[in-house]
Amino acid sequence: MNARELYKEILKKRSCLCIGLDTDPRRIPLHLQRDAEPLFAFNRAIIDATIDLAVAYKPNLAFYEAQGPEGLKQLEKTVDYIRSQDPNVLIIADAKRGDIGNTAELYARAFFIHYDFDAITLSPYMGKDSVAPFLQFEGKWAILLALTSNAGAGDFQLRSLESGELLYERVMLESSGWGTTDNLMYVVGATKPAHLKRIREILPSHFLLIPGIGAQGGSLDEVLEHGWNPLGGLLINNSRGIIYAGEGRDFDEKARQAALQMVESFRIRQGF
Amino acid sequence: MNARELYKEILKKRSCLCIGLDTDPRRIPLHLQRDAEPLFAFNRAIIDATIDLAVAYKPNLAFYEAQGPEGLKQLEKTVDYIRSQDPNVLIIADAKRGDIGNTAELYARAFFIHYDFDAITLSPYMGKDSVAPFLQFEGKWAILLALTSNAGAGDFQLRSLESGELLYERVMLESSGWGTTDNLMYVVGATKPAHLKRIREILPSHFLLIPGIGAQGGSLDEVLEHGWNPLGGLLINNSRGIIYAGEGRDFDEKARQAALQMVESFRIRQGF
Repeated sequence: MNARELYKEILKKRSCLCIGLDTDPRRIPLHLQRDAEPLFAFNRAIIDATIDLAVAYKPNLAFYEAQGPEGLKQLEKTVDYIRSQDPNVLIIADAKRGDIGNTAELYARAFFIHYDFDAITLSPYMGKDSVAPFLQFEGKWAILLALTSNAGAGDFQLRSLESGELLYERVMLESSGWGTTDNLMYVVGATKPAHLKRIREILPSHFLLIPGIGAQGGSLDEVLEHGWNPLGGLLINNSRGIIYAGEGRDFDEKARQAALQMVESFRIRQGF
Repeated sequence: MNARELYKEILKKRSCLCIGLDTDPRRIPLHLQRDAEPLFAFNRAIIDATIDLAVAYKPNLAFYEAQGPEGLKQLEKTVDYIRSQDPNVLIIADAKRGDIGNTAELYARAFFIHYDFDAITLSPYMGKDSVAPFLQFEGKWAILLALTSNAGAGDFQLRSLESGELLYERVMLESSGWGTTDNLMYVVGATKPAHLKRIREILPSHFLLIPGIGAQGGSLDEVLEHGWNPLGGLLINNSRGIIYAGEGRDFDEKARQAALQMVESFRIRQGF
């Protein structure tokens, strides 16, 4: 899927919502905890309830890896299920990997071929050769951490370099030459809206994946005001605010309501 | 295991060798490729041949994840097997993770409790809250990427900050306060020996995990000259140079010879 095709999906669904599948066994409703595959059973219900509202799903790998091999089986089934329900949804592995060339290549094959993800989040710390192997796959995306939504973002990402920029700005400037607007996106936390304006000066055309709306407190309005571009350019993620909107048997209906509320705010704000 | 106990193992085995289990199915000798669990069969033979020479083993997660859930089962068996052969060997998950607090916590539980690793490599890009959860486990270690051995290290790690240091130096200065010399190590590539002297000025007491000897061309002598400290302070890793030293039925014997050669160089150089 390239940037134009992704934008087409955004227009079709009138939504730029990405739903984060941070599926925590301790937060799965009781009646699903007895299921042989509780993570998958939970995800399937969330997907069924939201597939017409979301242009992307983003399973966070940690939640599946924490369950050992069994968790990864349920991740595989989740990816396959999303694909079977809507082949045009972007499926993002929130993996935050970053390793030297030969290892990065293995990860790329694992996530893009074995699991059939469309995109993967990556840490830029190890530089170009840790990212380049992910840019060799037609229609697949590397999503680089630039300015993250957590408190620790200030520790290094916001450091000033001798050359004048902040570290995350240098990451964007440097890495944008490694790929194209069709295979490279950036993670920018909604909790740092003041930076979005500057980011659009540096990278007017790239898609940005925006976490931090909802549980982490970012504002949808501010993100849209500074981040929207002529090809859409935004995937706005919400994880816990949607998937844990309810706790009982109607958790999927509650998740749909939470997703719909975000999507409606988006539609009104954008006049869609 | 704390730093003093690790040093005791180094003295006992007269070795600071860490063997990287970057076990690639395409490079496993033919006679093992028919095994039901080829990664584990390969690892077990390598471990049997080298357990008296290595103070640490470092499975690179990518190689197991690339095989899907089945690969992770063989990783589990590998960790258990090392533990059963020598309970005092440090087992490092070369995972290079880095994620926000609640996710980092899950990874910590997955790697330290589910898999029973002693240590995990982490990317520092997301800052303190991405590392802190790994420092809450008695006797376990977080190993932060500081200056890596790959070409891309120059893209960001060697950038000068406005405050005067290089980025990797700032990572060390800043993060060393997050933990202690008993739960925090750093990755420093052997391909950058000129920096080791400066690193020992910043962090005289911390253990360093040194990749890049062997296939990547780093020099053992230079690493020992600048990096050794009164508690040892070094784990020197070799992956491909040892585990792929041979290709045939005697691959384990060839691996032992390669490991022994490194360990003997170390013993002669240090007078052990």
